[in-house]
Amino acid sequence: MTTNQLVTQIKKKKSFLCIGLDVDLNKIPKHLLKEEDPIFAFNKAIIDATHHLCVAYKPNTAFYEAYGLKGWKALEKTINYLNEKHPDIFTIADAKRGDIGNTSAMYAKAFFEDLGFDSVTVAPYMGKDSVEPFLAFKDKHTIVLALTSNVGASDFQTLSVNNQELYKAVLHVSKTWKNSENLMYVVGATKAEYLVEIRKIIPNSFLLVPGVGAQGGNLQEVCRYGMNEHVGLLINSSRGIIYASSNQDFAQAAASKAEELQNQMQAILTK
Amino acid sequence: MTTNQLVTQIKKKKSFLCIGLDVDLNKIPKHLLKEEDPIFAFNKAIIDATHHLCVAYKPNTAFYEAYGLKGWKALEKTINYLNEKHPDIFTIADAKRGDIGNTSAMYAKAFFEDLGFDSVTVAPYMGKDSVEPFLAFKDKHTIVLALTSNVGASDFQTLSVNNQELYKAVLHVSKTWKNSENLMYVVGATKAEYLVEIRKIIPNSFLLVPGVGAQGGNLQEVCRYGMNEHVGLLINSSRGIIYASSNQDFAQAAASKAEELQNQMQAILTK
Repeated sequence: MTTNQLVTQIKKKKSFLCIGLDVDLNKIPKHLLKEEDPIFAFNKAIIDATHHLCVAYKPNTAFYEAYGLKGWKALEKTINYLNEKHPDIFTIADAKRGDIGNTSAMYAKAFFEDLGFDSVTVAPYMGKDSVEPFLAFKDKHTIVLALTSNVGASDFQTLSVNNQELYKAVLHVSKTWKNSENLMYVVGATKAEYLVEIRKIIPNSFLLVPGVGAQGGNLQEVCRYGMNEHVGLLINSSRGIIYASSNQDFAQAAASKAEELQNQMQAILTK
Repeated sequence: MTTNQLVTQIKKKKSFLCIGLDVDLNKIPKHLLKEEDPIFAFNKAIIDATHHLCVAYKPNTAFYEAYGLKGWKALEKTINYLNEKHPDIFTIADAKRGDIGNTSAMYAKAFFEDLGFDSVTVAPYMGKDSVEPFLAFKDKHTIVLALTSNVGASDFQTLSVNNQELYKAVLHVSKTWKNSENLMYVVGATKAEYLVEIRKIIPNSFLLVPGVGAQGGNLQEVCRYGMNEHVGLLINSSRGIIYASSNQDFAQAAASKAEELQNQMQAILTK
């Protein structure tokens, strides 16, 4: 999917919501555990109930790997279902990968070619040659961790290097990489005040913003400081939406929570 | 496996060699492609031929994920084979994971509990709460990327933060994390001159050193500056060993290359 196609979807749906599909078998409704593939059954129900309210889905690979082969199979079924039923929806493999060049190329093949995701999240610590193999794929997007929403973000990301915080160095340096037009960035919503600084460095890039909802970020503030003329934001909510109810009505409850956020987004986009 | 058990194995085998099982179907001998599971067939042959010469095996997960379900299955079969046949051998899932706390906990479960690896590599960018869920596992080891062997290491890892390079900040800060006795570190062999500095900060930790062989590191120099009284080194070689031959004799050729390194290690350990 091209960035333009993503922007078109955002304007059409009046939503820049991304729903995180972080499926934990201890948290999904008990009646689903009788299904042959409870993880996929859960995802399918959530997707069927919410696809008109969001523009992206983001399975975090950890939640699938934790269930071994059957988890990986559920991930495959989920991305296949999305690509078949909803090809207009942007898909994000939240994998936070990154390795030496030939190895990152294998990860890029896994997520972009074999699984068919539109994008993947990557960690920047190993630098240019760990990220460029991902950037080489046309119309695929590489979402680099810049400033994350967790407490540990302050351990290294906000340390000062050459008179700027490390995450700013990541933004500046990554802009010089080959095919950097395929970059997006993870920016934690709990640090909305940083968005002004970030937008000075990368005015045009899309930002994937986790941390609205369960992690406590504020949508209005993120939009005020992070939105650009092409919207440029994907706001993720995972637990706040998918675990809204643990009863038979879980999918409708998820849709209600998604609709609340979509309504807020519509108000912001149309004011 | 405890660190003491690893040290015992090193002394018994007179080897601190780790063999990287980075299986690329384009590089393995053609006759194996007829096997039902070529990846596992290759790994089994390599393990059978080299297990007496090394103390650790390190499959890099990228090479398995790139083959989807059948790749993940081959990874499972490989770790199961190692744990059954060679429980004395230290196993490393080279996965370079790291995410927010509840998500890292899922990765830790996947690699330590479900797959049964002794250790996993993790990226430090997201800080304390992204690594501590791994450290919580008793007799399991978390190998944090400090200074890697690739070109991109200079993009961020060697930038100066608070008058020291970032990788040194990673060493200092990670020492303060809960259960930090379960930490090991990745230190690239192409930077042997840095080992003196690293040993000042973490004199007792095990270092996993990639980059000997295909990536050009020098074994003598790494040992001179990196070895401690409990050896404290695992030297990895992947391509230089496993792809020594692409003919029927590939496993014997791999054993010869492994033996060359083991001989050098024996000379260093017994001098």
